[in-house]
Order: sequence, then structure tokens, then C-alpha cells
Amino acid sequence: MPVNLPEIESMELYPVAGVKLGWAQGHIKKANRKDVLVIELCEGASVAGVFTLNRFCAAPVTLCRQHLAGNKGIRALVVNTGCANAGTGEQGMLDAKKTCNAVAELLAIPQDAVLPFSTGVILENLPMDRLLAALPNAVNNLAEDNWKDAAYSIMTTDVAPKAVSEQLNIAGKQVVVTGISKGAGMIHPNMATMLGYLATDAGIEQSLLTEITKEIADLSFNCISVDGDTSTNDSFIIIASGQSEVQFNSREQAGFAELYQSLLASAQKLAQAIVRDGEGATKFMSVNVHGAKTMAEAKAVGFAIGKSPLVKTAFFASDPNLGRILAAIGYAARECDSLNDLDTNLIDLYLGDVLVADKGGLAKSYKEADGQNIMNRAEIDMTVKLNRGDVDVTIWTCDFSYEYVRINADYRS
Amino acid sequence: MPVNLPEIESMELYPVAGVKLGWAQGHIKKANRKDVLVIELCEGASVAGVFTLNRFCAAPVTLCRQHLAGNKGIRALVVNTGCANAGTGEQGMLDAKKTCNAVAELLAIPQDAVLPFSTGVILENLPMDRLLAALPNAVNNLAEDNWKDAAYSIMTTDVAPKAVSEQLNIAGKQVVVTGISKGAGMIHPNMATMLGYLATDAGIEQSLLTEITKEIADLSFNCISVDGDTSTNDSFIIIASGQSEVQFNSREQAGFAELYQSLLASAQKLAQAIVRDGEGATKFMSVNVHGAKTMAEAKAVGFAIGKSPLVKTAFFASDPNLGRILAAIGYAARECDSLNDLDTNLIDLYLGDVLVADKGGLAKSYKEADGQNIMNRAEIDMTVKLNRGDVDVTIWTCDFSYEYVRINADYRS
Repeated sequence: MPVNLPEIESMELYPVAGVKLGWAQGHIKKANRKDVLVIELCEGASVAGVFTLNRFCAAPVTLCRQHLAGNKGIRALVVNTGCANAGTGEQGMLDAKKTCNAVAELLAIPQDAVLPFSTGVILENLPMDRLLAALPNAVNNLAEDNWKDAAYSIMTTDVAPKAVSEQLNIAGKQVVVTGISKGAGMIHPNMATMLGYLATDAGIEQSLLTEITKEIADLSFNCISVDGDTSTNDSFIIIASGQSEVQFNSREQAGFAELYQSLLASAQKLAQAIVRDGEGATKFMSVNVHGAKTMAEAKAVGFAIGKSPLVKTAFFASDPNLGRILAAIGYAARECDSLNDLDTNLIDLYLGDVLVADKGGLAKSYKEADGQNIMNRAEIDMTVKLNRGDVDVTIWTCDFSYEYVRINADYRS
Repeated sequence: MPVNLPEIESMELYPVAGVKLGWAQGHIKKANRKDVLVIELCEGASVAGVFTLNRFCAAPVTLCRQHLAGNKGIRALVVNTGCANAGTGEQGMLDAKKTCNAVAELLAIPQDAVLPFSTGVILENLPMDRLLAALPNAVNNLAEDNWKDAAYSIMTTDVAPKAVSEQLNIAGKQVVVTGISKGAGMIHPNMATMLGYLATDAGIEQSLLTEITKEIADLSFNCISVDGDTSTNDSFIIIASGQSEVQFNSREQAGFAELYQSLLASAQKLAQAIVRDGEGATKFMSVNVHGAKTMAEAKAVGFAIGKSPLVKTAFFASDPNLGRILAAIGYAARECDSLNDLDTNLIDLYLGDVLVADKGGLAKSYKEADGQNIMNRAEIDMTVKLNRGDVDVTIWTCDFSYEYVRINADYRS
């Protein structure tokens, strides 16, 4: 079961003016589940995206990049689960284009105003007949209050749907931020087999939105790891519909900091939701890395810990076998050359507020019972102080259980 | 059970003249098992070693490096399992020195002629009383025909002991190469929680031995991965006792190529043995990467595949979910910048001799039944042709099973 993931049924997901969502059952991989989503945007909405860095990126990702680069305005998004349309060569690109064409025709908008997204099994072609048959149904139920169904319709191995929503009052005017995400495995930064969509009815000028989308992704979706694998299809999109009275052209405007903070916190919640629902997860861990020289160093240390199978199995067992954390810190230099001069004699390690190691060795004050006490929790913080600079970061990860193996051994069957 | 690992009881392990081995029960972590090993070398033996790159390297590794750098001749090695003496700060260094001193006294040799090795749990101090009490027992049974017991005495989570031995005829003279290794988890190149000792009675001049030890490690122990974790204690040692009539001062001498090939093949067998006995392994996989521009590229691609939990769980399930291999290739650029211009449209993927993908997409000729047929085997080859250069490498890895999680969740208990 997901670790402390808020129940979507008990959440209020505020509609975002100018953003309509419609779903359908496309029977893409399994029958009778919501697996197709269309999102229609009002004219004038700004849209920015961040995509996987995987060289084997999927056809829809390539097409998304092209359509966003065209800068002619995005009017719709179309998502299918069950098939990633990745590793599919020319046929994959033809299928992604055909999907955009179909949505464009149904909504009477240009083909390059549509962003396509696919997630699911790699190396299989999209079942175009079933997908195309589903699109009119999705378009028929487009509505602004469909966020919950939308959250369900983008799930793959997710146990539970993931959403976030809040109302802000910015300079006396109301603004809404609502988003959904999906992902549970093949999750690692830059990015994962995850999709994230965040929308606000505030207006944000296009180049500013592009800029902050990258920043927000780096501090949210690019700070999580479930299994260290990165996928071919990861995408994170922010939509600013501009339908509220609040409009931003620059970071300096009053109220922008509040909206930025809300978007960042929402993106972090959506990203953490993926970890809480990490395949087989029984624990949610926050790895705080303090005192690095650079963000690259901080992330290298955080992810060395956060993706170590040995660390993750120890947490699954609630076993304070904390030497594995030190070993992981020690090999982080593999991922970041500047760590080659890391002085391990400066490093302190805390589990919760318990000092485990200081100056690179077991702390005299450490008692295993104190470590055990923290390890028994479902939500665990650890802090590594590198004491070599002033850059901090937090990485979120989960443990590694039998269930992870079962899910991924069974995934296609 | 280990995958096609030769049974040590059915092997003949030839003694190496000038190399005596003695074991003891030190009760370091568990009672009544062989967990202490002393290896005594004749005067004049050459010894070279390659050690972990982990910044949190253990005290004994630091001391090994110092003693080898002293270049005054190594006369003994001492190994304990059950405790890694890593993350132990100043106390750890004192304990490692005390261990060397004790062995030096027993054998009447200088303290810096002893190389110490520890493997086991990190962040715990060595139980010095028990270790020191065991050393005289180990020294008392020193003998040249103790290789089998030595293989048992260095095991930790290993299911089975690992050894290799062969007799060569070089220019009419007999030479022996015999070795042992241990390791099953926290196994990744550069290096792993592994120990490897290879000895020959041929003579190899010190600087030449140092040179080839690095080369041989790079093509054997640095080509394996069980879980992607690297440890604090990894060490690979080659001993050339010089007791046979065959002596080498340069690579150009007749017969050197034969000895080199034997040492390399033996090191590869010892390294592969660790993967065959990988924690929870049910399959042994060889990942052949062809046509890279550089060795760094080839290894980055091989290890991206070889350490992906998603690839490894798919192999555990015998599920030809081969898109995961493409995804792993796609993110190998994370580890090797020169792969940023990787053209995925040039890539071919074979499973055994079955063409799965050509030009980056699903091959028209591919039938899942053919892929399934290969996946059902316990020993599987796959070949990735990058078609961008002429460097090839093979990486050895194993699958990822429930048993891996069980072993590592239980390790300390």
C-alpha cells in the first residue's frame, strides 16, 4: 500500500478555468479501464514541459518537443497508458502523429497544437484502431471538473491515483493550482516513467513559464528515485490558462513568489506521491544532503543513497545497517567528479535526529536501539552533512521489497 | 543456488610453491565457521593489488595501499570475514595495524610486510580479542595445499566457495595458477565487496606485475555487477611467488602471453563465479556491447543494462520485456558524457542469436516465442551493437529475485 499518500476520494480538486479533461476506455493493454485522456486548453494558455533525457526517447516525446518549439500555442494534450510507443522507430512517429491528427480534427485545432503522451510497455506498437476509436468518447466528456477521473486514467502500475490542488489568494484575487501525476516504477530523475500535469488559471508569460518549469522540475520530479531506472517517456507539463485575473510577465511582480511557491510545493507533492506509491514501497525516505559544494555533488550523494539496493533493502527490513549508507556516499564520486576529493573524515550522518556517525566513523553516543526506533517508522528522514560547502538538497526515495520484484517480474503478464 | 558454478569439491586446486595458507575459526560474527585466513609468502614473491575506489574505503585497504607502496616486499596476507572494519575511524586503523603486528610477530617478519583484508558488516569495530586469539591457530596450519579451506574461510553471504586452478606448460616448464574469490552482494565494478586472490609460482618482476594486475582487474572484476553497489573493502591481489623456473621481466619474453592469458582467464572465472553466486541469482547474463567509440562508453552501456533493476527483474521472470534494455541503453549517457550524441537509430539488439531490434526499433522478423525461448535459459547472452566505433566489452551480471531482497533484508540478523 502507498505510504501516507493522501486518498484522492477525500480531496477536493478545484477546476482550473480554461482546462477541460475527458477520459475514455481504450482497452489499450487491459480491457475496461480508463486509459485514454484528452485535455483541452483555452486559447491563449501558456504551456511548458520538461522531458526525459533518455536517448531512447519515445516518439510522442520527440513530437511534444517539436510542437512546443513551434511556439504557436498548445490547445490540447492526449495521453494513453498501456503502451509507451517507444523503441518503435518510424511506425511509432507515424502513430504519434496520427493520434495528434485525430485529436486536432475532433477539436478543430491545428495538428501541431496537440501534445501527445504515451506510457506503458516499451517495444510494442500502439494499437491505433482501439486508440483512435476511444478519442471521440474522451472528447465527448470534456469538462473542467474531471480531474479525479483524469488522475485514474493515466495510471499504469500505480496502486492509487495522485493529485494535488489548492486555492491561493494573490493580491485579493483567487488563483487555483491543480495537478495530477502517475508513476511507480522506472522512476529516477531526468526523469522517470512518470507523467505530471500541473495547471493554474493564473496567466504566466510563455518564456517565464518555460524558465520556471525547468526550475520546478529540478527541485521536484528530478529529486525522486524508486529504482534508478529512467524511462523513455517521462514528461512534466505546467499549464497556465490565464483565465483568472492574475497575470504575470516577470518574477518581480507582486504575488509571483506566492504562485511560484505553490507550483513548486504542488510539484513536490506530486513527485513525492510517486515515491509513496513506489512499486512495493513500505517506507518513504527523505535523504537530506547538507554542505555540498555544488547541487551536482549534493544530488550525486543523495541519489547514491536513494538508489542503493542495499540501503533500500535494509530500510525494508527496518535494519539499522547504516554502514551501507556510508558505502553509498563513498561511491557517489562515480557520478560526480568533483567528489573525488571528498574527505570522509568530515562527514556526519543522522538518522532522524540520532547522530549515527561523526567525522566519518561510528559516533560514540550512538546506540543501536535509538537507530532501531527510527527505522521502525514508515516515514524516515536521514541527514548527511558533508561539511564542505553550503549547498543542500533533499532526495525522496522508498525502500525495496519483495513486492517490487513481484510487480516487475509480473508487469507484462 | 549458484548458476552453473563449478563445485569446488570436484576441482583440483594445485598448490603454488611458495604460497602457504592457514585458516582459523575466529567467531568474528558467527560461531564455528572458518572466518580467518593467513597466507604466507616465500621471500622474493612479487605482490600487486587493485582496491576499491570507494571514498569511504576501509582501514585495512588504506593500510594495504601503504604497505604495497613501501615496496619492501610482502610476506603475508591476513583476511577476516564478518566485520569490514569500515566506517570505524581512528579505532579502525589502530585495529588493522594491531592485526598486522600480530601476524608479523607470529611469522617473524616486519609489520609492513603484512597486507590486511576485512569484509563483512560496515560501521562495526573488529572484535580484536577474538581475532587475535584466532591468528596463532591459522598460522599453525599453514600449508601449500590448503586452497579449498582458504576458499571457504573468506566467504560471507556466498552460498558456495569460489576457486580456479590450472597447470600450464610454458616452454617445457610447468607453471601453476590458482586463485580464490568471494563476494555475492554489493558487487559492482571499481570494485565490490569482493576479495580475489590469484597466485602463480612463475616469477613476474614487480613493476610488470603491478601493471598487468590493473589490466586484468579491468577486464575481470571490473566487468561484473550484482547490485550496482560498490563496497568499502574490495581488493584483488596477484601473487607471483617466483618458485618455478619460469621468470618474466618483460611482456616480450616467450611464454609471457600464455601466462597473461591464463591469469586473465582465471581472474574472469573468479569474477564470474561471484556473479553466478550473486545474491538470489537464478540467471547468469553476459551483456556484449559492440561498436562503442571508447571502453568508457562500452562499459557505461553494459552496466546501464547490467544494473537496471527493471531489466534484472524481467530476466528473473523469464519475461522478454526487452524494451527495458533499450531504455537502459538510452540512459547510459548519464554515466558517460560522450554518449550524449548516441544515435539510437543505429542500434541493434540481439538476445542470444535472435535479432530483437534493428535500427533502434522492434525488428520485423522478431517473434516473441523466439525471445521467450532464450529467456527460459539459465545462462543468457545478449548483444548490443552501437555501430559507432570499434570497442567491444562484455559485462557479466545476474537477475534480481525475491531472494536478493530476503538475503539483504536479513543480512545482519
